[in-house]
Amino acid sequence: MAHAPGFTGSPLDRAEHIRLTPEAFEAARADPAARLLRLDGIDPVLDGGDGLGWDALAQAPADAPLALLGLIDGIPHFTALVADPTRDGRSPGIFAVLDRLHPGDAATFAAARSLISWHARHRFCANCGTPTDIFRAGWGRRCPSCNTEHFPRVDPVVIMLAEHGTGADARVLIGRQPSFPPQRFSALAGFLEPAESIEEAVARELHEEAGVRATRVRYVTSQPWPFPSQLMIACIACVDDDAITLDRNELDDAKWVTRAEVADALAGAADASFIPPPRFAIAYTLFERWLEGA
Amino acid sequence: MAHAPGFTGSPLDRAEHIRLTPEAFEAARADPAARLLRLDGIDPVLDGGDGLGWDALAQAPADAPLALLGLIDGIPHFTALVADPTRDGRSPGIFAVLDRLHPGDAATFAAARSLISWHARHRFCANCGTPTDIFRAGWGRRCPSCNTEHFPRVDPVVIMLAEHGTGADARVLIGRQPSFPPQRFSALAGFLEPAESIEEAVARELHEEAGVRATRVRYVTSQPWPFPSQLMIACIACVDDDAITLDRNELDDAKWVTRAEVADALAGAADASFIPPPRFAIAYTLFERWLEGA
Repeated sequence: MAHAPGFTGSPLDRAEHIRLTPEAFEAARADPAARLLRLDGIDPVLDGGDGLGWDALAQAPADAPLALLGLIDGIPHFTALVADPTRDGRSPGIFAVLDRLHPGDAATFAAARSLISWHARHRFCANCGTPTDIFRAGWGRRCPSCNTEHFPRVDPVVIMLAEHGTGADARVLIGRQPSFPPQRFSALAGFLEPAESIEEAVARELHEEAGVRATRVRYVTSQPWPFPSQLMIACIACVDDDAITLDRNELDDAKWVTRAEVADALAGAADASFIPPPRFAIAYTLFERWLEGA
Repeated sequence: MAHAPGFTGSPLDRAEHIRLTPEAFEAARADPAARLLRLDGIDPVLDGGDGLGWDALAQAPADAPLALLGLIDGIPHFTALVADPTRDGRSPGIFAVLDRLHPGDAATFAAARSLISWHARHRFCANCGTPTDIFRAGWGRRCPSCNTEHFPRVDPVVIMLAEHGTGADARVLIGRQPSFPPQRFSALAGFLEPAESIEEAVARELHEEAGVRATRVRYVTSQPWPFPSQLMIACIACVDDDAITLDRNELDDAKWVTRAEVADALAGAADASFIPPPRFAIAYTLFERWLEGA
């Protein structure tokens, strides 16, 4: 049975009504039970086990604005909108922390991480250049000059396995980006563009990166990816012709692998033909779901 | 058989290699066969039939920058990045034009419309407030001061039918926004937020707007919506309890309808219990697909 996709299953109630009412937001801030996400820079700090660390809200830094992540068991949970030192990147240790973190808590952290990064990079009005003010409990910014309202970006990304053949003989296409660790292969992926459907973006990316032509695309699952704020949309695309033409700007290598090869890789077999992405990446879930017949 | 979703099926080859090479972009601009999208403000002008009107690129306004939409049969097709007088809205006549426009041409228009609107509202760097420059053949902006690169937004929106019961007895939940024309009902919808999966956003929106609890969510299809640049993700969500609690800020009314009622509405029956959205809206496709067993 496939795991739930990474960064899903947060216990947060996003409590939109609190965002829309400044008085409700102030009441949540004044709640003596209110909690503040414990951060090291913009990375999570664990509670000693596999959960997120939380402090009393009173310990919030005086100079950082607060965003209401939502309610957990009715208790307001906040993050400080601290500076983002990574500029879209990731700290070297974040993946090791995520590997330990309980999935539902990773999803809660993802909301904080995406909000922090968005505020850090969107302090000015894109419409007129004026510094903007935070509103809606940290879920938006408003321009005091032209009144334009700005909301956090979520960038849809398609990630897909091309599939050649059927049943036990089927193989899927995996590729590696130049930045990957040695032997790591994953599903191909790319940003969806304006005026594309999911299915069209999958077909375009497969053709651009690997020269293969999708004849049919089926959706499998989705998850957020908070570096800084993608929506990962996982699909499988049938192809009739398995000839690969690599785009060397995007990929170092690409190859077709069988069900047995994917199963060995997920099992961490010593002689596996590739090393899969981490378990909290949707490509891992996509491999699992493909083995299960998705 | 359901229609293809609206705004899909463009014949454009997006030709990313031209965007990435300024010399290739200049060569495309200099191509004597190059075409320019004919616009009335930011609405399309038809060619006399059901196709988009195109002019010679030489007729482009001197004061508007150009974006390369892509290649059609190898010929570069451009749009001028004109001012957007609608400010995210729609002109009164646009839906009548879209009703006539060939679907593939509507998809080509959608790319132009989303790009025009994005440039009009993103002339300044959100990171530092400096006016930005267009790059990548119109598919991005770059800050000359802090070097941040900005790319067009695509905002994912979930749109869904809650489904109660199964088989011939199944009913789906439809609602109407205060702004809808009389008798118009549609699927419920809302923006996906940072750190949500598609399935989680569907469940949250159904609960927020109608008080129903999704037990299972299945993806159906997707399409772009260029007002200004949404990715519409259509799903069906099973619910066990059909009691509705309306959010009056979002919806005027909501009700459960049977397969016969949906079929009558799509057929335009005089005594239909509601008027469906236009055919180029994904809610129409979602109704069709539900009737077909999706």
